[in-house]
Amino acid sequence: MNSFSFHNPTEIYFGEGTADQLAEKVIRYGSNVLLVYGGGSIKRTGLHDRVAKQLQEADIRVVELGGIEPNPRLTSVHKGIELCRSEGIDFILAVGGGSVIDAAKAIAVGVPYEGDVWDFLIHKAEIRGALPIGTILTLSATGSEMNGSSVISNWEEKQKRGFGSSYMYPRFSILDPTLTFTVPRDQTVNGIVDIMSHVFEQYFSLTQETPLQERLCESILLTVIENAERALDKPDDYAARANLMWCGTLALNGGLISLGMENDWSSHGIEHEISAIYDIPHGAGLSIVFPNWMKYVMDERPDRFAQYAVRVWGIESNGRSDRELALAGIEATRHFFTRIGAPSTLADFGIGDEQLDRMAYEAVRFGPIGSFKMLNQEDVRAILQLCL
Amino acid sequence: MNSFSFHNPTEIYFGEGTADQLAEKVIRYGSNVLLVYGGGSIKRTGLHDRVAKQLQEADIRVVELGGIEPNPRLTSVHKGIELCRSEGIDFILAVGGGSVIDAAKAIAVGVPYEGDVWDFLIHKAEIRGALPIGTILTLSATGSEMNGSSVISNWEEKQKRGFGSSYMYPRFSILDPTLTFTVPRDQTVNGIVDIMSHVFEQYFSLTQETPLQERLCESILLTVIENAERALDKPDDYAARANLMWCGTLALNGGLISLGMENDWSSHGIEHEISAIYDIPHGAGLSIVFPNWMKYVMDERPDRFAQYAVRVWGIESNGRSDRELALAGIEATRHFFTRIGAPSTLADFGIGDEQLDRMAYEAVRFGPIGSFKMLNQEDVRAILQLCL
Repeated sequence: MNSFSFHNPTEIYFGEGTADQLAEKVIRYGSNVLLVYGGGSIKRTGLHDRVAKQLQEADIRVVELGGIEPNPRLTSVHKGIELCRSEGIDFILAVGGGSVIDAAKAIAVGVPYEGDVWDFLIHKAEIRGALPIGTILTLSATGSEMNGSSVISNWEEKQKRGFGSSYMYPRFSILDPTLTFTVPRDQTVNGIVDIMSHVFEQYFSLTQETPLQERLCESILLTVIENAERALDKPDDYAARANLMWCGTLALNGGLISLGMENDWSSHGIEHEISAIYDIPHGAGLSIVFPNWMKYVMDERPDRFAQYAVRVWGIESNGRSDRELALAGIEATRHFFTRIGAPSTLADFGIGDEQLDRMAYEAVRFGPIGSFKMLNQEDVRAILQLCL
Repeated sequence: MNSFSFHNPTEIYFGEGTADQLAEKVIRYGSNVLLVYGGGSIKRTGLHDRVAKQLQEADIRVVELGGIEPNPRLTSVHKGIELCRSEGIDFILAVGGGSVIDAAKAIAVGVPYEGDVWDFLIHKAEIRGALPIGTILTLSATGSEMNGSSVISNWEEKQKRGFGSSYMYPRFSILDPTLTFTVPRDQTVNGIVDIMSHVFEQYFSLTQETPLQERLCESILLTVIENAERALDKPDDYAARANLMWCGTLALNGGLISLGMENDWSSHGIEHEISAIYDIPHGAGLSIVFPNWMKYVMDERPDRFAQYAVRVWGIESNGRSDRELALAGIEATRHFFTRIGAPSTLADFGIGDEQLDRMAYEAVRFGPIGSFKMLNQEDVRAILQLCL
């Protein structure tokens, strides 16, 4: 186990009806709120009205920023920063999924910074402050509701980059599983793949002597697998939705489940290059990339992959080698993704090999990526080739 | 899964050498520090000098309060409160195990309160503030380093009571596994039993649909069981000590592993009555009480006990009933405790049945205890009888 530090100050309010406690939480931080949301589903479901009414009754002024994109764009972040400055905003409330929350985080750190917020994403400047933010989560997926990370797309430059800061942890997040009952099937699927991917990126690690962390990872994977089809078959199954939601939050929680382990986020990096160019949903991209990344890197540590096969997929070892078990575990992953309706090839989105070189180049723009296996441009290209 | 709220703001610095980062953490909160410690082991190991030197070099004034008892006493807490007031203390640093940290917490909330701090423990007053505290942990056991709970003994009244508050979370805790290398064998054993007991009290729950939480509990139990004998056989095995330490912290972490589950702390309550009268180590008392509590309550939910037997002890079901598996799991627990040298009967401490009635009476003084099975005075007496 490596040394580590950990601090996750986000308050969580979990359960049916917790959204009705919103105003009392917000008022501790401010009375001029920027309400950030996405494509309008919260208007269709009535959540927007419920939120607006509560804030209004508590004499909290609301300025709205809707239309945040599924891969949130720098242009929207700029718009949010301008609004915060011109309207004297003192608190940002994100109501939505990871994209909305990620946009809110970027806005929050951009407001007190004089330069372009994009500077933070290309390591040109250091974050030194932020407006406080809170969230109401409507999609189980990214974990952004309880961590200090954000991913923003710069559409002009076809770049999608992640960044993080202790200033970006939400002050509170409201997690009401009933708000995910209306999430469409494909978004539920993408969320499931995203949650599992977050765990993979922590679990497949070269760090030795981390038995607790490995089991915490396996706990989340097993629980997601158990509850995925249940939530897809019956979207208003409270327990299934609640289990997925809490799995999503713990899966990417300031690193909680893998403290002391080296992580490998190269699959996320590769996916970012795909959706930076083709704007496909993040979870869909991960479903395509992950099994191929696994196959490409498994020989670095077949024992971990064998453990994954046995403990997560219940594959019996029957005297098989670690390598054979590893392959069986990867196949089980692929089958599961297919069974829940996640894509498995770039061709599923009509994407060919035209941009592989560019994506591979961009993925390693700041140097080789990964730690489980260090990937250079050629490696990334080879993995993308497997994704076709 | 039930609704829940969660907020754990404690910063963790984990790993070899993290104790040398102490001064920079303390100075954020104060420059007049009360240094709280126990029986003097930190003087023998050199940790006391290491701490004192660091603080001195950072121009931090130190007032000392040593001699905190293994079951920390109200008299020591009173002494600490007086010292804080008379010396103008602005930060409390606990260096030790759970007892020392618990005492520091009680001192911290007692300072700004005009009445007797014991009022908080008998629900006569509400905590409204506290001095900030930090900890350097030297024993893997109670989880007090990352939660808002404390247990204090009132020796005059032969009462041992727990209390908690959001004000009692340490601002930071330094967890250096090498500081536990010198912990004597019996204290290591008591710590192991304490950690496992904390998990039991969350895991054996009537709440339905909590698969992730159950697995998180099992993850800690499995990891403790794997690493216990390793740490006992080779006290300076870093990985084993690190794994136990992190298990201890996560096991009782503001409820992290069991959020949304009803807990049952009756075994802790029963043990408190034993050590309130006989002053035996808390972990030793738990080792005696727990298997008997399990046997007494298992019929409330044999399936959970059967799951425990199968997943934690690897007992094969072979068509056996839940009840049979449950009993096998309880026996496995008892055997494990015996194997690591933990006591199994009150007779091991020369305790007979003289005070059973009084302990049973005190245990339910504020009403029946427990939720997995609600225990009245007769039930507690019956469990204590099994402990003889």
